Amino acid sequence: MPENGHQNVTMVTCTAPVNIAVIKYWGKRDEGLILPVNSSLSVTLHQEQLKTTTTVACSSSFQEDRMWLNGKEEDMKHPRLQLCLREIRRLVRKRRNTGDPASDVISVSHKLHICSMNNFPTAAGLASSAAGYACLVYTLSKLFGVDGNLSVVARQGSGSACRSLYGGFVQWKMGERSDGEDSVAEQVESESHWPQLRVLILVVSAEQKSVGSTSGMHTSVETSPLLKYRADAVVPCRMEEMIMAVRQRDFAAFAELTMKDSNQFHATCLDTYPPIFYLNDISHSIINLVHCYNQHYRETRVAYTFDAGPNAVIYTLQEHLPEFVELLHHFFPPQTNRGEFVKGLPVCSASLSEDLKRDIKMEPKPNGIRYIISTKAGPGPCVLEDPNLHLLAADGMPKNTA
Amino acid sequence: MPENGHQNVTMVTCTAPVNIAVIKYWGKRDEGLILPVNSSLSVTLHQEQLKTTTTVACSSSFQEDRMWLNGKEEDMKHPRLQLCLREIRRLVRKRRNTGDPASDVISVSHKLHICSMNNFPTAAGLASSAAGYACLVYTLSKLFGVDGNLSVVARQGSGSACRSLYGGFVQWKMGERSDGEDSVAEQVESESHWPQLRVLILVVSAEQKSVGSTSGMHTSVETSPLLKYRADAVVPCRMEEMIMAVRQRDFAAFAELTMKDSNQFHATCLDTYPPIFYLNDISHSIINLVHCYNQHYRETRVAYTFDAGPNAVIYTLQEHLPEFVELLHHFFPPQTNRGEFVKGLPVCSASLSEDLKRDIKMEPKPNGIRYIISTKAGPGPCVLEDPNLHLLAADGMPKNTA
Repeated sequence: MPENGHQNVTMVTCTAPVNIAVIKYWGKRDEGLILPVNSSLSVTLHQEQLKTTTTVACSSSFQEDRMWLNGKEEDMKHPRLQLCLREIRRLVRKRRNTGDPASDVISVSHKLHICSMNNFPTAAGLASSAAGYACLVYTLSKLFGVDGNLSVVARQGSGSACRSLYGGFVQWKMGERSDGEDSVAEQVESESHWPQLRVLILVVSAEQKSVGSTSGMHTSVETSPLLKYRADAVVPCRMEEMIMAVRQRDFAAFAELTMKDSNQFHATCLDTYPPIFYLNDISHSIINLVHCYNQHYRETRVAYTFDAGPNAVIYTLQEHLPEFVELLHHFFPPQTNRGEFVKGLPVCSASLSEDLKRDIKMEPKPNGIRYIISTKAGPGPCVLEDPNLHLLAADGMPKNTA
Repeated sequence: MPENGHQNVTMVTCTAPVNIAVIKYWGKRDEGLILPVNSSLSVTLHQEQLKTTTTVACSSSFQEDRMWLNGKEEDMKHPRLQLCLREIRRLVRKRRNTGDPASDVISVSHKLHICSMNNFPTAAGLASSAAGYACLVYTLSKLFGVDGNLSVVARQGSGSACRSLYGGFVQWKMGERSDGEDSVAEQVESESHWPQLRVLILVVSAEQKSVGSTSGMHTSVETSPLLKYRADAVVPCRMEEMIMAVRQRDFAAFAELTMKDSNQFHATCLDTYPPIFYLNDISHSIINLVHCYNQHYRETRVAYTFDAGPNAVIYTLQEHLPEFVELLHHFFPPQTNRGEFVKGLPVCSASLSEDLKRDIKMEPKPNGIRYIISTKAGPGPCVLEDPNLHLLAADGMPKNTA
C-alpha cells in the first residue's frame, strides 16, 4: 500500500466508469440488501468521457470519517454509504480471517477521508451514483487489500453500481438466494469485443425534476401489475437474447432489444400509481427520429435507451455515426457551434440526403438537445498510480478546497 | 315510417352520443368481426354538448348510395361503412323472416342517402367514429323498423360505437364466441343513476397527428407482451370492480380505477414496437395536477382519462367542479376570456387557497389547454320527430350544401 509520510496517511486513488443498461433494472425484491426483481445488462462507458475519481485516505490520526463530493463536504451518515462501509469492513475481516495476513495491512478501524469527483456535469443527468459507489468500493478494496467479486458491497450502495465494477458488457444476475450472495455482476464480454459500437449521450433540457429512481422503483413494485409480469415473464428471455446478440455482435438484434426494453421499463413507470414520467416531448421526438431513420434504410442502424430522465443514450455503429449526428444537428439545431454541440470522441461531419430529411417526419426543434457526449465502451475501474492524481493532500484534506 | 311526398322519399333522423371509456378497449382478437381482447366500460356523454345527428333517406328513385359527413360528400366505398350496411341489411332480412312482416316496410334494396353532422369540432380530438357509427346504425334500424341489440352491427363500424348505443354507464362484454354474437354492449346503469358525476373535456394543443387507433391497436396486439397480460390477467378484475364502483356511486374507487386503467392503456402503447405516444408534456402536467389536487385533500376528488390523443377527460363530482376548473384556469391560463375557455354546462367561479396553489407542484403553462367542454352523463341515441330537423331536404339532398 502506498504511504504518505505526513501524519502516516495511507492513500489510494481509483477511477470507475458509468454504465448504461440495455436490459433495465427497475424494482427491488429486497430493499435492504438491494436485490433486484430481474437481471439486467449494461454497457460500461469509456472513462475518458465519463468517470468518477475517488481518493480514500486512512490514518490513525483522523478524528472522524469525512467525505467530499465534487468539492463539497457531505454528511457521512447517509445510510447507503454507511452500509457500503460496513459491508467492505465485513468483507475485509472475513477474507483476512481465512487468508494469510499480510504484514502491511491497514486497520479497518481507522477513520477514513473520502474525496470524489466526476469529470462530467451533474446536469448531464447521468446516474452518477453507480460510478460513485463502484469507485468507492473499488478504492476501499484496494486500500484494504481485498480481492474478488465486490458486487455484494457495491450493490448495497446503489444497485446498478455493481455493473460499473467491470468493463465492456456486464450482466447483473438477479440471483435466487435470500442473503443476496448470488446477486452479482459478471462481465459478458470485454470492452475490446465490439470496437465498432459507439455511444452518444443526448443531453436534453428538462423542465422539472423527476421522481428519483429509489422511490420510483419502490412505488412501481408496490403498484404496477405490469412490472411483476415483465420481471417474471419477459426479462429472462430478453437476457438470453441480449447476451447472444452481444456475443455475436449482432447490431440489429442488440438494438431492437435495447429499444424494446427501454420502452417497457418506461411503460411500467406509466403503469405505476401515481404514474411516473421520465420521457418528455423531446425524448418522444428522439424516439421518433430513430425509428424514421431505421425505417429509411430498412435496417436497424441506431438504438435509443432512456433511464430515469429525459436524456437519450444512443447506440450505433461507427460507420453510421457521422450521418446520424448530422441528422441530430439538423433536427435539433443548437444555439452553440458544432464543437460545443458534440463533446467527447470526434465525429466527422457528413451530408444528409433530401430523401432522408423528408423521411424524418418531424419539424426541427431548436435547442431540444443541449449537447451530445460522444463515447464508446470502456474498461472497468482502475488504480491511479501517480500520487499527483490523489484528490487529497498529504494531510488528508481535499486539494481543491480550503 | 315518416314519408316525404316528394319523389316518395322516406327519411329518419336520429342523434347519438359520444362515450368515454373508463376501462379501455385496446386490441382486437378478430379484426374482421371487431372482437376485442378485453371487455370495456364507458360513460355516455350528454348530447347537449356532444352528439352526432344523422339523417338517412331511402327512395326507389335514388340512383346510388351517397353520403355527406359534416357537409362534405364522402366515398361510400369505405370498407367499415359497407360492412355496417351489409350487417344491418342482413339483420333486417333475418328479423323479417322470423317476425310478422308489417305492411309499410322499407325495401332493403333501395338506395340510401346518408347525411351526418357533429355538433362539436373535429379539433376536439374526440373519437367521433363511435358516435357516428352508433348514429348510423341506430338510424338505419329505425328506418327499416328493426329492434333489439344493435351491438353486432355498430361494433363492425367502429368497436367502441356499440357502447354509444346506450346512455349512462355501458359495458361492452368481450364475449367468447368466434362468431362474435355475444360481444355486445349492455347498460350497467342509466344516465340518471349518478347525477353528481360531472365530466370535463380538456382540449389540448397537439403538435402532430398521432398514430390512428386502428393501426395502433393492431401493432400493439402484434408486438406488446404487456398488452396480452393486461387483457388476460388485469382487465377481468377491473371490470368487476368498476361495475361495483359505478353501482355504489363510490367516486374514489371509480376514479382510481379510471386513472389506473388509462395509465395502463398508455403503458401498453409505449410497450408497442415501435412505441406509440398519445400523451404529451401538457397531458403529463394535467396528470400531475390531478394527483397533487387529490393529495392536497387526502381524498380522490378528481380522475383523468386519456384516449388516443393528448386531450384529457376529467371525471369529478358536482361539488368539486368549480374549484377544479378554477385551478385549471390558474395553471393553464388561456388567452381567451373565461366564457370562451369553459364551454357547455355552466360552472360557477371559485376562489383558490394559497395552500392549494402551493401544493400543485408546477409552473403555470399558458395556453396549454385551449378550452374545456363541461358536460355530464347522458342518454343513448334518440329519434328526432320534427321533420324540420332532417339534414336532408325532401329531394334527398343535403339542406346545408348546394
